[in-house]
Amino acid sequence: MTPYTAATQDQLLAIRICGGIEELAASERFAAAEPDMVEAIVEGIGAFAAGEWAPLNRIGDTEGAQLQNGVVRLPDGFAEAYEAYVEQGWNAISAPAEFGGQGLPSVLGCNVLENLGTANFAFNLLPMLSIGAVEALEDHGSAAQKALYMPRLVSGEWSGTMNLTEPQAGSDVGALRTTAVPIEDGEHAGKYRITGQKIYITWGEHELARNIIHLVLARTPGAPEGSRGISLFVVPKYLVNADGSLGPKNDLRCVSLEHKLGINASPTCVMSYGDNGDCIGELVGAENRGLAAMFTMMNSARINVGSQGVQIAERALQQAVHYAADRVQSARAGAPDRTAVPIIEHPDVRRMLMRMKALTEGMRALLYYTAGQVDRGTLGNEAAALRGEVLVPLIKAWGTDTGVEVASIGVQVHGGMGFVEETGAAQHYRDARIAPIYEGTNGIQAADLVTRKLGFESGGVFAALMADIARDATDEPALFALAGDCAAIGVWMRDEASLDDRLAGSVPFCEMCAVAVAGWQMLRQKNAVEAGAATSLAAVKPATTRFFLDHIVPEAAGLKASAVAGASGLYELSALQLAG
Amino acid sequence: MTPYTAATQDQLLAIRICGGIEELAASERFAAAEPDMVEAIVEGIGAFAAGEWAPLNRIGDTEGAQLQNGVVRLPDGFAEAYEAYVEQGWNAISAPAEFGGQGLPSVLGCNVLENLGTANFAFNLLPMLSIGAVEALEDHGSAAQKALYMPRLVSGEWSGTMNLTEPQAGSDVGALRTTAVPIEDGEHAGKYRITGQKIYITWGEHELARNIIHLVLARTPGAPEGSRGISLFVVPKYLVNADGSLGPKNDLRCVSLEHKLGINASPTCVMSYGDNGDCIGELVGAENRGLAAMFTMMNSARINVGSQGVQIAERALQQAVHYAADRVQSARAGAPDRTAVPIIEHPDVRRMLMRMKALTEGMRALLYYTAGQVDRGTLGNEAAALRGEVLVPLIKAWGTDTGVEVASIGVQVHGGMGFVEETGAAQHYRDARIAPIYEGTNGIQAADLVTRKLGFESGGVFAALMADIARDATDEPALFALAGDCAAIGVWMRDEASLDDRLAGSVPFCEMCAVAVAGWQMLRQKNAVEAGAATSLAAVKPATTRFFLDHIVPEAAGLKASAVAGASGLYELSALQLAG
Repeated sequence: MTPYTAATQDQLLAIRICGGIEELAASERFAAAEPDMVEAIVEGIGAFAAGEWAPLNRIGDTEGAQLQNGVVRLPDGFAEAYEAYVEQGWNAISAPAEFGGQGLPSVLGCNVLENLGTANFAFNLLPMLSIGAVEALEDHGSAAQKALYMPRLVSGEWSGTMNLTEPQAGSDVGALRTTAVPIEDGEHAGKYRITGQKIYITWGEHELARNIIHLVLARTPGAPEGSRGISLFVVPKYLVNADGSLGPKNDLRCVSLEHKLGINASPTCVMSYGDNGDCIGELVGAENRGLAAMFTMMNSARINVGSQGVQIAERALQQAVHYAADRVQSARAGAPDRTAVPIIEHPDVRRMLMRMKALTEGMRALLYYTAGQVDRGTLGNEAAALRGEVLVPLIKAWGTDTGVEVASIGVQVHGGMGFVEETGAAQHYRDARIAPIYEGTNGIQAADLVTRKLGFESGGVFAALMADIARDATDEPALFALAGDCAAIGVWMRDEASLDDRLAGSVPFCEMCAVAVAGWQMLRQKNAVEAGAATSLAAVKPATTRFFLDHIVPEAAGLKASAVAGASGLYELSALQLAG
Repeated sequence: MTPYTAATQDQLLAIRICGGIEELAASERFAAAEPDMVEAIVEGIGAFAAGEWAPLNRIGDTEGAQLQNGVVRLPDGFAEAYEAYVEQGWNAISAPAEFGGQGLPSVLGCNVLENLGTANFAFNLLPMLSIGAVEALEDHGSAAQKALYMPRLVSGEWSGTMNLTEPQAGSDVGALRTTAVPIEDGEHAGKYRITGQKIYITWGEHELARNIIHLVLARTPGAPEGSRGISLFVVPKYLVNADGSLGPKNDLRCVSLEHKLGINASPTCVMSYGDNGDCIGELVGAENRGLAAMFTMMNSARINVGSQGVQIAERALQQAVHYAADRVQSARAGAPDRTAVPIIEHPDVRRMLMRMKALTEGMRALLYYTAGQVDRGTLGNEAAALRGEVLVPLIKAWGTDTGVEVASIGVQVHGGMGFVEETGAAQHYRDARIAPIYEGTNGIQAADLVTRKLGFESGGVFAALMADIARDATDEPALFALAGDCAAIGVWMRDEASLDDRLAGSVPFCEMCAVAVAGWQMLRQKNAVEAGAATSLAAVKPATTRFFLDHIVPEAAGLKASAVAGASGLYELSALQLAG
């Protein structure tokens, strides 16, 4: 077992400098986020996750979740590890105080998930989805629904899921067919009967929590076609009595689990609702407004999936460094004596490790910067809220693509041992690959950036972001130039480019923007460290920042041609020609 | 099962324009490589591989090779498919005529392996290793050894392996400990007793061929330490009688198979030699000259591993195109009617597919250009031989890294279905990951480029290559600039940079060079097509070349800063700081 410890110091720095926790704590709402509390949380969850969840990562992969007679079984240890998580109250960090949460900023909720996911990537999806369900109910549920469902979702005694996808409707949620028919009378009058099948339901069935609160998108009779006719329903695995006690089992079940490339400990369920015509759900929010409600969940879910890039990268990095420091092979090139050295001494292995570390820290900086903007939005800062929305596709798309890259480098550092499953490096490479796909593929993230968010305040939100970077980067020519390129491409996309041209360049453009913001936040951290902010990182942050600015930023600048190449060259070949 | 057809037309074009088959066929030695013969081979092996080997790709992954009571079992169908391959004579294409081969240029042998590997990546390793064994024996074996072993290796009735790695000596072959002790008298006088354990032996044990000829590196008593004390031995699974018939089983066995991330149909064996003190081997070539002999195999093996990048990319591309053409989801952005379209119509999906195709064709162009230079070298053209050696690390490193990238994009095109194993896209992503590791990691390839090959003829070989590119790229500013950058960095590395600085920039530099050569060869193909060379590609090649020059080449230019950044920034952090 490769030792793993939480990246507590770098997290604290990112929470402070990029997340701006001190500014947040100055507000009444987040006053509890004082320095001691922040430190206690970051250290506490880091130690808990490393101690209790990390040791289950490998067994979660090899044994995985298994469906046996309709019940999903997890490997030994998962139930106890989840119970300890709930008992220690980690699920409640950023949930509202009136339902038992601690009401802390999302930067700290984010940190809980970062640590859990670094320890155990697949297991972390369970709290991540539950926290999303809390947010959706908080924003859109009725007072009665909140009172009934939120306290135990907040504590983690119950878990939550998100049910969007149907076989015929992947990313096109508007094409879904699950139905919800109002119940006129009887015990469930005012509620709905849900019928349909959903796929890719993460942690859709398991027995770690005593109840599962499914949030399900469905259509009511006569609803408009497409995405304007979708409503959101809360559909519990066990019906909940008025006093909060569990009633009978609802008419829903897990039909099967997907056989996946990775995240084997996370049961990815095909869920069937209403096989016997008796699946009871309650409408959440207004009819036909389900997609808007789901977007509430999706915004923070996308940040948390972006965090998965940080998570897998941090774990892959630590594993690779330990391997490279232990593995003795070949003398240093040019060394007069031919004594074999640990491979960490070879320049290209160093380059790989520095790249892994710089990318990991850059993603983390962007992650907490994004979460901090969301928190400022919560405090009523509209500009920060909009900037946060611009940042969401950046951290989701670049973060998850970079997670795959870093996990792949981690395999490479191990040489042949990296391809052997027992080492564990290959698991990260497999697990990482889901994150660019779910919660809106990275192509969808980039489309969101160029078709919607680039236009916020006639481009002013995006322009201000790039101007802030340029202002701080006057001594860093590569970063300054990259921010300038992004700003110029942003103007071109918004004012000149056709929709197709924008979309054709969206993914490289999104990556350029993400690297610019991440490089900027690294630079801000470095400046803070050099001014005495975190003595334990005094040697580290300047080195990783330098690597990021000198290697990663110029590479991103190389994407400029792709970003502005336009769509015309993409449609010259037919499918037959493309495949031939 | 996704339909798959060989990329025959693009292969023929690459063989002609990049491999220069017509020039080769003008020589006496390769006179048989006339156009009809070339076309028959490329079409024939393409159809054979697609028809007989491709259908076994998935079962090879799901069932894999299994070790049962010392015998390696392959899934149903493999034995028959291998037998058909041998019967049809495909193994003998580029082997010497005096041992039953067809004596054709390596560009055609390369094509056989490209097609087999695209059809079945893991299975292709069996002939690939056998062909390597043929080459090593041809160059270094005695007349008697050639007569005894080569005919059946050439036909494919017997297979070959390459035994370098030992547990304590991964890439550092000089650290190996396997021993070879001369036999003084008796039946095997003049031969050696081999004792030791080797790991990562590809197709080290199986029953598809009637005998397995292991080429094993070992040390004789009193041999110098390190790589200067290594000798090469031929160690057959079954001893071979003077008349070529099979004698008793040799004292060697497969101890176990690795549990790997991918290439499950390829048995990766731990081999034990001489458990009972009676493993008989014959010295090949001179004592202590084993590494040089092994390098003969490694050069062409590295080209053929580079080809694996093309292979996995072509297969992943075809699968992704078929999926994208079938999968209907979401209306085209901005389309007045909201009818869902096949996802191939969405700009970013198009970009992904065009990227996959342009990279695949670019790799193929570089592959056949490299093989063609090697063939010219065989004909006595020393400049071409040296250029071929410079190209080997480029195709191996960039080809295999790009294979991983294209396979990963292939997963992405499938969305959620890409992460589900049944689809098959995930298998390519897993299989592809071995190629940057074996046959010398890509870091070792890049080191070979900057520490050895850059210096050929005081830098003249490399400079001439870049000058050729620049000469042909006067109308392509991005390619022209990239070739200029490569040339300048080459001079800096050779004349100014420290060894550490060279190595620190070696991997990005190697990638820049590979993209420059591939872009050049794409351009040469495009020019030829526009001059009427391949009417079936008249629409395709200009489009893919344009994409390569407009997207891939500028990206590679973005690596310049990394290539010249030097090593000093890499050594600032300790292992503890890197992992913390």
